[in-house]
Amino acid sequence: MTQPDTLRGIGESASLARIFPRLPSSDYAIVGPGDDSAVMSAPDSRFVVTTDMMIHGPDFRLAWSSPQDLGWKAAASNLADVAAMGARPTALVVAIAAPADSPVSLLEGIADGLRDACAALAPGCGVVGGDLSVSATLTIAVTAFGDLDGRAPVLRSGARPGDVVAVSGVLGRAAAGLRLLFEHGVKNETPDATATAALRAAEPALVAAQLAPEPPIGDGVLAALGGATAMLDLSDGLALDARRLATASGVAVDLSSAAVGDRESLDGGEDHSLLATFPAGTALPGGFRAIGAVVAGSGVLVDGQPYDERGGWDPYEQWSGAAG
Amino acid sequence: MTQPDTLRGIGESASLARIFPRLPSSDYAIVGPGDDSAVMSAPDSRFVVTTDMMIHGPDFRLAWSSPQDLGWKAAASNLADVAAMGARPTALVVAIAAPADSPVSLLEGIADGLRDACAALAPGCGVVGGDLSVSATLTIAVTAFGDLDGRAPVLRSGARPGDVVAVSGVLGRAAAGLRLLFEHGVKNETPDATATAALRAAEPALVAAQLAPEPPIGDGVLAALGGATAMLDLSDGLALDARRLATASGVAVDLSSAAVGDRESLDGGEDHSLLATFPAGTALPGGFRAIGAVVAGSGVLVDGQPYDERGGWDPYEQWSGAAG
Repeated sequence: MTQPDTLRGIGESASLARIFPRLPSSDYAIVGPGDDSAVMSAPDSRFVVTTDMMIHGPDFRLAWSSPQDLGWKAAASNLADVAAMGARPTALVVAIAAPADSPVSLLEGIADGLRDACAALAPGCGVVGGDLSVSATLTIAVTAFGDLDGRAPVLRSGARPGDVVAVSGVLGRAAAGLRLLFEHGVKNETPDATATAALRAAEPALVAAQLAPEPPIGDGVLAALGGATAMLDLSDGLALDARRLATASGVAVDLSSAAVGDRESLDGGEDHSLLATFPAGTALPGGFRAIGAVVAGSGVLVDGQPYDERGGWDPYEQWSGAAG
Repeated sequence: MTQPDTLRGIGESASLARIFPRLPSSDYAIVGPGDDSAVMSAPDSRFVVTTDMMIHGPDFRLAWSSPQDLGWKAAASNLADVAAMGARPTALVVAIAAPADSPVSLLEGIADGLRDACAALAPGCGVVGGDLSVSATLTIAVTAFGDLDGRAPVLRSGARPGDVVAVSGVLGRAAAGLRLLFEHGVKNETPDATATAALRAAEPALVAAQLAPEPPIGDGVLAALGGATAMLDLSDGLALDARRLATASGVAVDLSSAAVGDRESLDGGEDHSLLATFPAGTALPGGFRAIGAVVAGSGVLVDGQPYDERGGWDPYEQWSGAAG
């Protein structure tokens, strides 16, 4: 029986040669991968940049996520941070560190996920550079870029009393998927691939919402064009991220429980939906729907009552240390 | 006795609040850290971008490197990749993943090293964004940006027969420092802080060349202004990187052993010096000195004889798996 090729077995150069052809190219690349640096076009004379790491253990489990899922989620979560500025994503650079005995197919799958996410969520965006390292812990670090097309960036700090609070994208679905994975994707309290396959068959949409979310990337530009006064991406949960927007803007955000839905929609993280505020009377663009109002004060209210639950996921406090 | 604050103990927000004030700001930041993305000025309507990760184990040992060393080296090695395009470094984004029981002082020290390296090697360059995660393996991922001031980027592929081969910066010093650390910075075959302190006192320059290298960042722009036809940064050793330049340009590089020095200067990696080619007769700019000539053919020659040693450091083959 043939053993699969591993990073240690075929080495860095041969591994990169297997990965490169699978990566999406960027419409904005002047010099792509292969030199000391890439050279990117920045037609606006500014660029937007964000970076985020995914770590085996606190951020994902290999028994739950396919390699494609990992590449998809690494791209999607960073693209959402670009979109949340009202920018059009142009490119990613991707650094991956993997155990030396990892099969090369793991890296190929991650590359396929990066490619598929760019094609589906941000056409024209591609990978312009990267780095491949060995590590005891599988780690994916993505830095994403965007272009503002001449517009002002949409910051967290521009919400004003009287504005409508709106969201584009799902609420609480990624958290529901994670809850299902902890409940049914384990065997003897350990993440388990066989149990996860059965769960995926039974609950494909919720599991996919956690493992390969589909944030409404194009709605970032539409929000900016539509007059958004503030915006951010919902990575840690609606309540927690709405509080960040409220604090940055010096206002309070009053959410409607009827519009938001259940408690998981209020507290669940990792949907990477877009939360934005618009002047009252604005025709909400794209997939945005009203879920509340900006009022004078501070913090988050639900139906006018202060809501002080933290919500969200804090790996510093909650990660057991197990990788799975 | 008071225990030091740890990441788990004080949490992500409080940790970030301790780190942020220590980070250098960028002259090119329009929107700095704190929103979903940063917004950078790109006066040239292009930007240069490179990314590189440093991993505990294969790339550094905590018994050898101080936290400041780690921040310094993470900045310096990425700045060198920007400089090797002929660009002026403008900013970094930095993602750090650390064990939850790490003292916050580890992160503060890394921030100080980033600040000191930017101030010393690339004034005006600063940190415009980042990410802090927990991981079983301490990991530092830096993405660096540069501006070309309207010039063409200096690629690896422009060397032509007849060009002078020149280097700016030291050769073999980082490798000599690493050799000394493996010989004298260990106790019972394990990296040891006490032994390393004694070694640092005896051989400060060579140890610093490995742990906190000082690549000639400003010479990247000077090389471009001075007519460099090709350039790269020496991360894996002169012989190996010269071969990359030769292959990309479709030429051979003939090095002079008298100009290069000993075998460690030819094969030793991690100096992050700049290797460039210039048309014959060019007055070499900055700290560049001639070490050979571009000739027709392929690969690397030394004194006219083919040199086929790989040289350099391949963590895929050579890393034991120990962290230290």
